[in-house]
Amino acid sequence: MAVQKMSELFVRTLREDPADAEVPSHRWLVRAGYIRRAAPGIYSWLPLGLKVLAKVEQIVREEMMAIGGQEVRFPALLPREPYETTHRWTEYGPNLFRLKDRKNADYLLGPTHEEMFTLLVKDLYSSYKDLPLTLFQIQTKYRDEARPRAGLLRGREFVMKDSYTFDMDAEGLQRSYETHRGAYIRVMERLGLDYVIVKALSGAMGGSASEEFLAIAPNGEDTFVRSPGGYAANVEAVTVSPPAPVDASSTPAPCVIHTPGAGTIDTLVTAVNAEAPRDDRPWTGADTLKNVVFMLLHPDGSKEPLVVGLPGDREVDMKRLEAAVGSAEAVAFGDADFAANPMLVKGYIGPAKDGTAILGEKGASGIRYLVDPRVVTGTAWVTGANVADHHVVNLVAGRDFTADGVIDVAEVRAGDPAPDGSGPLELARGVEMGHIFQLGTKYAEALGLKVLDANGKLATVTMGSYGIGVSRAVAMVAETTCDERGLAWPRSVAPYDVIVIAAGKDEALAVEAERIARELSGSGLDVLLDDRKASPGVKFTDAEVLGIPTAVVVGRGLASGVVEVRDRASGARDEVGVDDVVARVVAADPRMRAADVRGE
Amino acid sequence: MAVQKMSELFVRTLREDPADAEVPSHRWLVRAGYIRRAAPGIYSWLPLGLKVLAKVEQIVREEMMAIGGQEVRFPALLPREPYETTHRWTEYGPNLFRLKDRKNADYLLGPTHEEMFTLLVKDLYSSYKDLPLTLFQIQTKYRDEARPRAGLLRGREFVMKDSYTFDMDAEGLQRSYETHRGAYIRVMERLGLDYVIVKALSGAMGGSASEEFLAIAPNGEDTFVRSPGGYAANVEAVTVSPPAPVDASSTPAPCVIHTPGAGTIDTLVTAVNAEAPRDDRPWTGADTLKNVVFMLLHPDGSKEPLVVGLPGDREVDMKRLEAAVGSAEAVAFGDADFAANPMLVKGYIGPAKDGTAILGEKGASGIRYLVDPRVVTGTAWVTGANVADHHVVNLVAGRDFTADGVIDVAEVRAGDPAPDGSGPLELARGVEMGHIFQLGTKYAEALGLKVLDANGKLATVTMGSYGIGVSRAVAMVAETTCDERGLAWPRSVAPYDVIVIAAGKDEALAVEAERIARELSGSGLDVLLDDRKASPGVKFTDAEVLGIPTAVVVGRGLASGVVEVRDRASGARDEVGVDDVVARVVAADPRMRAADVRGE
Repeated sequence: MAVQKMSELFVRTLREDPADAEVPSHRWLVRAGYIRRAAPGIYSWLPLGLKVLAKVEQIVREEMMAIGGQEVRFPALLPREPYETTHRWTEYGPNLFRLKDRKNADYLLGPTHEEMFTLLVKDLYSSYKDLPLTLFQIQTKYRDEARPRAGLLRGREFVMKDSYTFDMDAEGLQRSYETHRGAYIRVMERLGLDYVIVKALSGAMGGSASEEFLAIAPNGEDTFVRSPGGYAANVEAVTVSPPAPVDASSTPAPCVIHTPGAGTIDTLVTAVNAEAPRDDRPWTGADTLKNVVFMLLHPDGSKEPLVVGLPGDREVDMKRLEAAVGSAEAVAFGDADFAANPMLVKGYIGPAKDGTAILGEKGASGIRYLVDPRVVTGTAWVTGANVADHHVVNLVAGRDFTADGVIDVAEVRAGDPAPDGSGPLELARGVEMGHIFQLGTKYAEALGLKVLDANGKLATVTMGSYGIGVSRAVAMVAETTCDERGLAWPRSVAPYDVIVIAAGKDEALAVEAERIARELSGSGLDVLLDDRKASPGVKFTDAEVLGIPTAVVVGRGLASGVVEVRDRASGARDEVGVDDVVARVVAADPRMRAADVRGE
Repeated sequence: MAVQKMSELFVRTLREDPADAEVPSHRWLVRAGYIRRAAPGIYSWLPLGLKVLAKVEQIVREEMMAIGGQEVRFPALLPREPYETTHRWTEYGPNLFRLKDRKNADYLLGPTHEEMFTLLVKDLYSSYKDLPLTLFQIQTKYRDEARPRAGLLRGREFVMKDSYTFDMDAEGLQRSYETHRGAYIRVMERLGLDYVIVKALSGAMGGSASEEFLAIAPNGEDTFVRSPGGYAANVEAVTVSPPAPVDASSTPAPCVIHTPGAGTIDTLVTAVNAEAPRDDRPWTGADTLKNVVFMLLHPDGSKEPLVVGLPGDREVDMKRLEAAVGSAEAVAFGDADFAANPMLVKGYIGPAKDGTAILGEKGASGIRYLVDPRVVTGTAWVTGANVADHHVVNLVAGRDFTADGVIDVAEVRAGDPAPDGSGPLELARGVEMGHIFQLGTKYAEALGLKVLDANGKLATVTMGSYGIGVSRAVAMVAETTCDERGLAWPRSVAPYDVIVIAAGKDEALAVEAERIARELSGSGLDVLLDDRKASPGVKFTDAEVLGIPTAVVVGRGLASGVVEVRDRASGARDEVGVDDVVARVVAADPRMRAADVRGE
């Protein structure tokens, strides 16, 4: 590979942060000239950025091929019909880019390709002898995110690797899933990302088991939990184990109390302890039953109110709620909505009034009412009396009210018990890098993917689907390695392995820098040569902003036969004899030796 | 690289031609399992097809890098604004895929990226010292073709390499253009395509000089001409040299004759030779002036009638007309249009009637009237008299009528003189593989791309734009190499270099085939091993359909120590000693030796 001269490289480092940069990776990828914004959530890749993207793609491709994956490439512009069959044309709601062609036919820009892969295999294969099969693609995908943010971390046009497995039965799917899981672990490790594998929900994808690979990052937008005993899940997937039912035979009858001004859980607790103190202990926020009203907007345009009842010391976690309500969008219940439902007395909503059910599909309001798993039969609650300035005390679940069902959407808190009994949960944040799904037969059934089994009978194929955010991985590697001086790539994905800097105006420095650059290049390294007519200071700063792993500085020391080798990540600087520098740079980096072992 | 087992390869060869296949490449790429149709003009790439695509991409990439091109990648989903500035948002008409995002903002799927590249360079560069610059991308592009056809040859989603050069002045642009031209020649040669470089029009792209690289193909949709003296142009770009004006002083005054039933040029010529014979020679079709009416549909939705006057022995070439009318679409003038313009007497339209101009913006009809370059001042014509069943004889251009201008859209015929005097033209057909444009300052001016020149003054940058159809090249290589038995790839782009076939049920054949396959793979070849439990006949047929350049058949001869080496393109078959076969396959193919020389 030829040495790239910095004087000819299409790059400009910027001194100012871009106005919309919320996270360090976004800031530095733009300032270092790796990407440029073309539209909200849509980026152009400049030469340095594209080189990193290609290296990440290649790592993913190699690991997919290592598990027998065969690469294909589907269009991004897709016809409506297959997505109509699986209902995703509607269920994706406003997240789908839809368009019409000149003949007024409906198309979409593919957000993921389950339908297309299912149809392709149906098209070509017909026998159990053809399976198992693993197909993958690395391709540009589209989602019309409501809030594109953080540069490449949440874009509207992005590069993904998506793969799909096809098996005859659940055991085969389990094997394929485990194999993919292993490949994803190797990808995360080769990218140098600190990651965690968490239980996840399947969401719009459908199917049963699924796990996410999260890169751990303090400003990540996904919250996950883990326990000392090894439980790990994203907050959407955490399940609360319901407590045992309570014997309420000695609980007093419900009693309405006057609670003027008790607009918060704290003031309510104070009021109820004054008006109706209990014998054994004071009432706490956990004894109150808060009833929160939402309006669900379904993808078909219809609206449906929903009341969620949960202990007053917890909030509804909107991400958990979104996951629980599937393809619907949950929004706050507005003043107009309250006006249209006069039975809901804002601030004093409760399941019953004077022994009559108010909430619930069979209640007077007819509004669906779902409660937290902690609201088990026999538990006694302080809750709204459905009259302004009044609450009711000792309203007992199963005795005085019932709900339409359970909804597990209360916030998860540090210290909550892990559902598998493995200890108290710790909360942390991360960014979803990969997601692996056991789809089962959802798509195969919807689209008719059946093959003949060993007995000559038609059997529905069982599928898995697996995604890695490739462009997002570029951002996450940047995010977790950059510092206050710029990017600091690991060598596995760096656009260049080494930058050689001629630090000074002396022609001899330029000549020697070029010689060293050529020799490093001849040794198989990707080499950038800073040959610009600029001050050493400018060059040093740029080299740090660009984040090239190793810099060789050819400067004043050359007169005494030495050059300086700088390690970007650690900041270490060593003087090295000019005749030893190539061997030193080729051999020194541990990542490089690992790469050699892997035959890269 | 690992040996790919055919038993595990995701491919099925089909016995039937796809219903919509018009050309051999389309037929065989589908039948051999390289591509599958996802929607009209939109294809999925299967493993074999994607490998060929990647090899073509790599050839193009290498040649772009060899001329100093730096690779970038723009989004396919682009905001409207830059294309609005250059008017292409409208000018592209129905060929552009347009869509709206969830905030109702306008987007398009990029058909070509002049605007985005111009803005990117404006964004980063500011001085003449930064130029010249060559940027390229290999990327998925979108055009909503009216008639997608011939598989990958004219698709609606396709892969292109587009590149752009940025220079300070016309000389710089000329140099960049010539450099690109050379790179394109090398790409065509490495792809093994028989090509011609022809003068072309710039069309929607704007700019001055442009040339097309056409792959010569009898069923290509582009017609081009060439002369013995080296002139070459596509038909749209051929210009007719106007003859010298004629002295019409002795031409008789125009005279109207009764021509009932003269509905064709032939019957008209017969009628006029009977009614108004000329002294020197008979009238011929070339003496008649045919006036053809079109309706121009402008991209803004407006309509405009246009009459084209040309010698009656020639038809209007619709491709030349489309090129001449720019962004408008020309459609036939319908009955309703004639009804709305009663001055146009269908079948008897002429420029004048009784000494009054009918056609022309200043004529009685007010309809724009453009004539063929052969209609020079002084030429005398037989043409419509604007009265049913009547024509006029000796209507002289410049004396009896004038036109609003000249339009050079008559069909070009074999034997017509080359415009540069280099001899009679020959017509042939081809497929556009590449197009190179000297854009000049059109985009830089529209979008404000200026840099400081050596004198510190702002100067507008001069641009070139250059495209190669990468997915189309896959189809064209297939088209020009396939035969009645299937595909027959040149080794430069073949998905595998060699297929090793175990021809027989004997386990020893399978063992030896696998050994040879591994050894070939170890020698650096891309190897497919047909290990299926299928008859030798099925395997031979499939190997021919797939078009792998070389087949090694391990069959009955193994007992006597020989295997057969088959060359797909020539059909040559040689028996080779089993110990010599690897060296023979590695060394024998001339294309392979050439590849070695090029360092592939």
